[in-house]
Amino acid sequence: MRASRVNKVLYLLVLLIVVMHGVVTASDDPLPSWNDSAVKTSIVTFVEQVTKEGSADYVPPPERIAVFDNDGTLWAEQPIYFQVQFALDRVKALAPKHPEWKTKQPFKALLEGDKKAFAAGGQKGLLDVLAMSHAGMTTDEFNGIVKDWLATARHPRFKRSYHELVYQPMLELLAYLRANGFKTFIVSGGGVEFMRAWVEKVYGISPEQVVGSMGKQKFEMRNGTPVIAKLPAVDFVNDKAGKPVGIQKFIGRRPIFAFGNSDGDQQMLQWTAAGSGLRFMGLVHHTDAEREWAYDRTSHVGKLGKALDEAMAKGWTVVDMKRDWTRIFPFDER
Amino acid sequence: MRASRVNKVLYLLVLLIVVMHGVVTASDDPLPSWNDSAVKTSIVTFVEQVTKEGSADYVPPPERIAVFDNDGTLWAEQPIYFQVQFALDRVKALAPKHPEWKTKQPFKALLEGDKKAFAAGGQKGLLDVLAMSHAGMTTDEFNGIVKDWLATARHPRFKRSYHELVYQPMLELLAYLRANGFKTFIVSGGGVEFMRAWVEKVYGISPEQVVGSMGKQKFEMRNGTPVIAKLPAVDFVNDKAGKPVGIQKFIGRRPIFAFGNSDGDQQMLQWTAAGSGLRFMGLVHHTDAEREWAYDRTSHVGKLGKALDEAMAKGWTVVDMKRDWTRIFPFDER
Repeated sequence: MRASRVNKVLYLLVLLIVVMHGVVTASDDPLPSWNDSAVKTSIVTFVEQVTKEGSADYVPPPERIAVFDNDGTLWAEQPIYFQVQFALDRVKALAPKHPEWKTKQPFKALLEGDKKAFAAGGQKGLLDVLAMSHAGMTTDEFNGIVKDWLATARHPRFKRSYHELVYQPMLELLAYLRANGFKTFIVSGGGVEFMRAWVEKVYGISPEQVVGSMGKQKFEMRNGTPVIAKLPAVDFVNDKAGKPVGIQKFIGRRPIFAFGNSDGDQQMLQWTAAGSGLRFMGLVHHTDAEREWAYDRTSHVGKLGKALDEAMAKGWTVVDMKRDWTRIFPFDER
Repeated sequence: MRASRVNKVLYLLVLLIVVMHGVVTASDDPLPSWNDSAVKTSIVTFVEQVTKEGSADYVPPPERIAVFDNDGTLWAEQPIYFQVQFALDRVKALAPKHPEWKTKQPFKALLEGDKKAFAAGGQKGLLDVLAMSHAGMTTDEFNGIVKDWLATARHPRFKRSYHELVYQPMLELLAYLRANGFKTFIVSGGGVEFMRAWVEKVYGISPEQVVGSMGKQKFEMRNGTPVIAKLPAVDFVNDKAGKPVGIQKFIGRRPIFAFGNSDGDQQMLQWTAAGSGLRFMGLVHHTDAEREWAYDRTSHVGKLGKALDEAMAKGWTVVDMKRDWTRIFPFDER
């Protein structure tokens, strides 16, 4: 063999090894932003067990339903729920057309910047404000407003669009589950129309796989064109004990995998845990004040106490953000 | 070459031709139970146009949402809605535990066999009866009851299980759409829990792709086990103007393909038609008293008048069952 030919063969062999190494490395670690800890092992072990054909724990693909809370689980929720900021901005934008709001609660509190008084109303208070302030608007119009807001509003601490504040490790987890035949759903206390405007682009979760709180709606003809109009009333609050009900209403089967971060997710985790066969229940514990925030039992958003106690008592997976995640946001340095 | 060897080669060639012919024929006609008519052409042309990359009518797969009414569109609905028969059978089965029903409407009418008085209550009356008679039961228990009923109840005319009375051409259409990247949904006035018990097996439509009427539900602990219990109240009626609302609530995007068979589907078809780009709107017209039933404008179930007028005025596809379908049920001879 001539030297040049030997070189060529060697070159191709090296190329092959480099390529193979890349492939093996990638498939070796589908969760690169997760530290190699017991938490990561609990996820990977679960997925390997339920997808291994012939194993006693095998779950056929149609039954591989995974549900995720959104606020504090897939994206951040401090200093206030992002949808609350959206509602604040909307009430301010609409206020000139509603002089009566200056003296009417909860609008008065909102316009005077009293976020705490407003936050005290919880998800229901937020939903009431959104329903009342957007009554009569069509669902298509509302969708456009949410998209405009996301394109222009900036988070006060990170000075970035709100949808950039999603958790890189969770994006990897969503992709990993889907690559293993899972169908991924959001099950959030947030408004379903608010989330559907952007979750497909950001999480790869299609609108029909979003379960959330919702306002009442009405089909009607406007100048001969059919529209769906928003009514000034809340229809369903998908929080706490509402979450398993939302799962049953919208999905119609019990998840085998559920991830949350607050006491509002406790019943969803209980419902998931109570099915037969292998199940995965996970909680994100916000422990990283430097890269994100640290809060739990006394927080005004994402309060985590009872669910954390149950998770520890029952051996559910608890992510310690500071310990388990090498990156928080996609824009963090690797 | 010896004669025996020539014969062998010829035999293999013939076999190959037969096999290839079968393959080509199968792929040539994904809708073998549809006569080659304008109706079939309208379906195939639509699917080819929206799936052809680079064409002006191209629709990306996530947007290929197809919705189907159930009663009278995917399965039969005569002589009474099959779910009404289920409700009748359930009320009879539960009557011994409810002596008060003997004097209380609508139970009295049902127990006395007055189906017409009951049918006058429409979908809402049916849902009320089911909600009241099954209050307190868990969703898992109800699912089992529906499955047991389907396994034992027989249709009065065909003496077959109710879920055998599905339309073979529609089974082919569902499969054809899915093979072309469509996501197929049921959008029915029927109860969502009633349908989810069997539609995956019968239509290949998963529970999370069923939109239907529903009763209120509650999450609670029973002896330490979390359950979802049915409450004695109707939550949502997915019929007429409720159908587009149901689509928006559960799917969150507008379908590009919709099939129905009655005036209860008119608004769903209008909502589908009003989107931008190419759309398909179809109606099944029951015209075959011999193989199935013939009914439309004056029928007590599946009344079809206003929607038929609109379909004809707007050029929507109308299936003439007798003319367009070579087979009705899977058990019909080919």
